[in-house]
Amino acid sequence: MKALLIVAHGSRREASNEEVRRLCKQVQEKAAETLGMVRPGFLELAEPSIPAGIQACIEEGAQQVTVLPYFLSAGRHVSEDIPAEVNRARAQNPHVNIILAPYLGAAPEIIDLLIKSGG
Amino acid sequence: MKALLIVAHGSRREASNEEVRRLCKQVQEKAAETLGMVRPGFLELAEPSIPAGIQACIEEGAQQVTVLPYFLSAGRHVSEDIPAEVNRARAQNPHVNIILAPYLGAAPEIIDLLIKSGG
Repeated sequence: MKALLIVAHGSRREASNEEVRRLCKQVQEKAAETLGMVRPGFLELAEPSIPAGIQACIEEGAQQVTVLPYFLSAGRHVSEDIPAEVNRARAQNPHVNIILAPYLGAAPEIIDLLIKSGG
Repeated sequence: MKALLIVAHGSRREASNEEVRRLCKQVQEKAAETLGMVRPGFLELAEPSIPAGIQACIEEGAQQVTVLPYFLSAGRHVSEDIPAEVNRARAQNPHVNIILAPYLGAAPEIIDLLIKSGG
């Protein structure tokens, strides 16, 4: 079984964290067949943390967990903090395939989305 | 003349700020006819600030400036800080039409982009 963990920064504003949780449900409703379970994870300020989110996927039966940073720019969080959390989870779960996907902002489609949103 | 100001958070990691500046150039290259000039602005940690970015567009001749928050979640920055900066710029430039567009994460296309990136 596969899992996708969408990792956001986390906010003091709970409505913002709920938005991420709702997004995960929408993605799962639309693509459960290809992605498996879709769950949220937060770098800080909200639960579950990245390790807890990965662990929850594994406990639900995932043998492969893709961690997708829901970030637009490759700042310190994307380049250092999230990879460090992923490596910790890998060390704790050597039998699980934990994949770190490129952050969302790296997708070439972002250009066209900006053109559409800014026009 | 129109302008689009793409507003990112700003990072201590200068490569991340450069990524936003490069993105603006790519968007302008692809859509200058419809969007006009495309410039970066940063909420903190990088230059130009949002008011300075808006001012630069006006000095280059823009009569309409669309401010597009390059953010995925509606946290405090999107819901409070950026609107406050935009309102300050409006007060200083009553003759310019300053539009605050929805933040990028509000675009419905984000769902499909997540499905593609996480698959």
